[in-house]
Amino acid sequence: MPTLPDSVTQLLRDGLGVKKAAARVRSIDDVALPDIRLPAPVAERLTAVVGPEHASSSPDARVRHAFGKSTIDLLRVRGGNAASAPDLVLSPASHDEVLKLLRICSDERVAVVPYGGGTSVVGGLEPDARGFAGLVALDVRRLNALVELDHESLLAVLEPGLRGPEAEELLGEGGFTIGHFPQSFEYATIGGFAAARSSGQASAGYGRFDELVLGLRVATPAGTLTLGRAPKSAAGPDLRQLILGSEGAFGVITSVTVQVRRTPEARVYEGWRFESFAAGARALRRLVQEGPRPTVLRLSDEAETALNLARPAEIGAGSGAGALAIVGYEGGVGEVAVRHDQASAVLREGGGGLDPDAGESWARDRFRGPYLRDALLDAGALVETLETVTFWSSLDGLYRAVSDALRGSLSAQGTPPVVLCHISHVYPAGASLYFTVGAAALEDPIAQWRAAKAAANDAILAAGGSITHHHGVGIDHRDWYAREIGELGVDVLRAVKAQLDPAGILNPGVLIPGAGR
Amino acid sequence: MPTLPDSVTQLLRDGLGVKKAAARVRSIDDVALPDIRLPAPVAERLTAVVGPEHASSSPDARVRHAFGKSTIDLLRVRGGNAASAPDLVLSPASHDEVLKLLRICSDERVAVVPYGGGTSVVGGLEPDARGFAGLVALDVRRLNALVELDHESLLAVLEPGLRGPEAEELLGEGGFTIGHFPQSFEYATIGGFAAARSSGQASAGYGRFDELVLGLRVATPAGTLTLGRAPKSAAGPDLRQLILGSEGAFGVITSVTVQVRRTPEARVYEGWRFESFAAGARALRRLVQEGPRPTVLRLSDEAETALNLARPAEIGAGSGAGALAIVGYEGGVGEVAVRHDQASAVLREGGGGLDPDAGESWARDRFRGPYLRDALLDAGALVETLETVTFWSSLDGLYRAVSDALRGSLSAQGTPPVVLCHISHVYPAGASLYFTVGAAALEDPIAQWRAAKAAANDAILAAGGSITHHHGVGIDHRDWYAREIGELGVDVLRAVKAQLDPAGILNPGVLIPGAGR
Repeated sequence: MPTLPDSVTQLLRDGLGVKKAAARVRSIDDVALPDIRLPAPVAERLTAVVGPEHASSSPDARVRHAFGKSTIDLLRVRGGNAASAPDLVLSPASHDEVLKLLRICSDERVAVVPYGGGTSVVGGLEPDARGFAGLVALDVRRLNALVELDHESLLAVLEPGLRGPEAEELLGEGGFTIGHFPQSFEYATIGGFAAARSSGQASAGYGRFDELVLGLRVATPAGTLTLGRAPKSAAGPDLRQLILGSEGAFGVITSVTVQVRRTPEARVYEGWRFESFAAGARALRRLVQEGPRPTVLRLSDEAETALNLARPAEIGAGSGAGALAIVGYEGGVGEVAVRHDQASAVLREGGGGLDPDAGESWARDRFRGPYLRDALLDAGALVETLETVTFWSSLDGLYRAVSDALRGSLSAQGTPPVVLCHISHVYPAGASLYFTVGAAALEDPIAQWRAAKAAANDAILAAGGSITHHHGVGIDHRDWYAREIGELGVDVLRAVKAQLDPAGILNPGVLIPGAGR
Repeated sequence: MPTLPDSVTQLLRDGLGVKKAAARVRSIDDVALPDIRLPAPVAERLTAVVGPEHASSSPDARVRHAFGKSTIDLLRVRGGNAASAPDLVLSPASHDEVLKLLRICSDERVAVVPYGGGTSVVGGLEPDARGFAGLVALDVRRLNALVELDHESLLAVLEPGLRGPEAEELLGEGGFTIGHFPQSFEYATIGGFAAARSSGQASAGYGRFDELVLGLRVATPAGTLTLGRAPKSAAGPDLRQLILGSEGAFGVITSVTVQVRRTPEARVYEGWRFESFAAGARALRRLVQEGPRPTVLRLSDEAETALNLARPAEIGAGSGAGALAIVGYEGGVGEVAVRHDQASAVLREGGGGLDPDAGESWARDRFRGPYLRDALLDAGALVETLETVTFWSSLDGLYRAVSDALRGSLSAQGTPPVVLCHISHVYPAGASLYFTVGAAALEDPIAQWRAAKAAANDAILAAGGSITHHHGVGIDHRDWYAREIGELGVDVLRAVKAQLDPAGILNPGVLIPGAGR
């Protein structure tokens, strides 16, 4: 675990009033696990499907499948509270085994949480299993093959349990890449990317993961769905888009056909400094609307720039003024050169000045941010991120509304926060905002954060934003999500769920309010 | 109506054995309309919602709403058979009026066919109203406003009744375009583009219509759905993609938020001639996979090139050998120049030779093709088109399978056909195939075509294609569509329909087998 630079320790003490380090449990033996509720005969039937070596009720297995990676999850781990742990962890090796497990769980009314990389930050791994005969985690880690690589169509058929680096390594041997690099990349899985509509740091160039998915196989309690015979089609509603984002509530994704690209020959990352967040946002908007489009586009607001958050290794090391953009290009050597020159002209016209080192240091350290959080929590800070997305014309209002809500709630609790923000993903019609919040932790930091987050969520909806751009819905966003799509939208989801999962065993309470209860 | 060039008349006679001109009814008075079944009190209640001047049961109104534009539709018109005519045509002026009409129709079990431009070529306007108390056409032509134009997000909120040219004119005043130009452009409406997942001739550059739709308002018998707060989001399944392609079976689209672009400064269209269809396809594939991507990409096979079908004004005028591609660029002057030069280098490397005039003559005449069909039918020919899409690695197999199926079926009926094909839309992962078929008409040309089409549809599914790339499902493709998405996929659609349209009044029998019966 990284240690905090002195500058950060000083910021915590002087800036946020952090006074004392937080306590945490020492080892897994101190974590309180709930009693196993799953009846032994049912556990035996389920175990027989996967084989005893791929089924476990050990405390270690149960604890490892009890949490995601939100700050609330980390706080619960630290507090030794594993109330959400499954009774049994099962690792099937095939689509057919998944189908069999789902049928048994349906018959016996056992709740199922599909588990990939465990990187949910929205409570996606804590279904509400009240009223069920138990809870099992269906861990897809053994479904980890590159099934097919179609060089002509640039398609890879991947199993859901492949983690980001594993998938990239398998594809890289053939000279291909998905180009999907979210911050969770090192742990998150292909199935999770699809089920939760992940979006990576190079989405401007490669697209969101949901845009790259052209085929899906899904095991549901009602049978198998096989979707996607073509990149696009007019054959009715796009049912792939009903499974993408379904977060395990409709079925378990057992195969994903994903668009790949040839591994880029050239990669260039640069920093560009703008006088203000607004000026930088205008330049990014022009690039994404009129081209040429860089592969990576990200813009920190003034506060985040000042704190150097885009370069985790140098946080607090003193950054310049204004708003720092990271602009990256990946592709063929000649193509990157042309695109770089054209885009640089647009950025310069938009008032940007080149900051040569910032790009490469961002690229080097870009997966490092989340690891700092543990050290910050240890030091007695409360740190968390949240994100949203809207159209460009509403972006400034959304930015202000969410910042104000976070500041208002945390200040009212006596812990005035630092609120940082960046534009993390851009589209011709809009952009996402990614907020990082830090404050001194109160005695009950979970309640402290829940209050701040609720205020932010209300502000997001009031300002016209979507409740999530790429973190997903889970349990944490569920009630705001229901407001976002309206009662009739929720009814549609319930109808689909009732068809695919009549017993309501899949991730009850995740995504859909009241589902499976 | 255009007259046929001598070369075409000669082709029909000598090439296809067309012997005698076809008969057709003289005027609308000769068309047989079914008796009106809708009970008068219900008609009065419905009429009261829109006002008597916007409701009609006149023979003219009924006939005009009885047909789409498939060859079978044209043949039925010619035969004077309007069995599919609605009892009453209603033109609501607002979302609320649509809701009211749907509620009354639900209560009274009256079937409803939403009507836009009437350009369906898949039987999308002939719901199966057996078992209902009548059939009303809900014509959206009065919902024809440009509601909002967001210059910053490049978004237009459009009502569904706007025809293609009307929408472009309203947007053009502000300097914008949708860039959506399907062959049905002159008549088809914004609502129809969305409901049937239309794809335009410039889709390589501007995207398919479904990719441009970022927001939807939908009136359903169960209430209103308002979808789309952001370009993309991880907030659950993308419900917009459930309405897009729903073909009026789930609700009536009353507002569409669509991505627009600035009207291009420059437009360049060129012809490129390749030695073979296969060589041209490789060059197109390289462009769409590696860039730079032209705005228009289309490639005729050898037979279509020989017949000059890409240039309707010069059909049969003697074209060169090989396979003709149309490649177009639209955008800023400088950007188009760069893209043109880069793409031209790729096309030349792929074996292409410039054919300077072919591009501009294609652009001039590109909406003219469908008008020829009437003259060909008059002359005694059977002419129709069909389309499909698949991944690149399956494209050649699909091409051969569909061609063989059409030739096999029509030859077995004693009318060996001419089968022409072009790649009409391209994606990194695949492409669509658009077939044009001509043969001598038999005594019952409808049965003749249905047999050929069934053989082609079977071949499409067997070769791994999707049953439609941009024509939609309607009645004609419904049974093959069900095979494409599987029983469980159909069950999901039925569940959604039951939720939004519990009485099953909306387009019964369209899209979903057995729905509403």
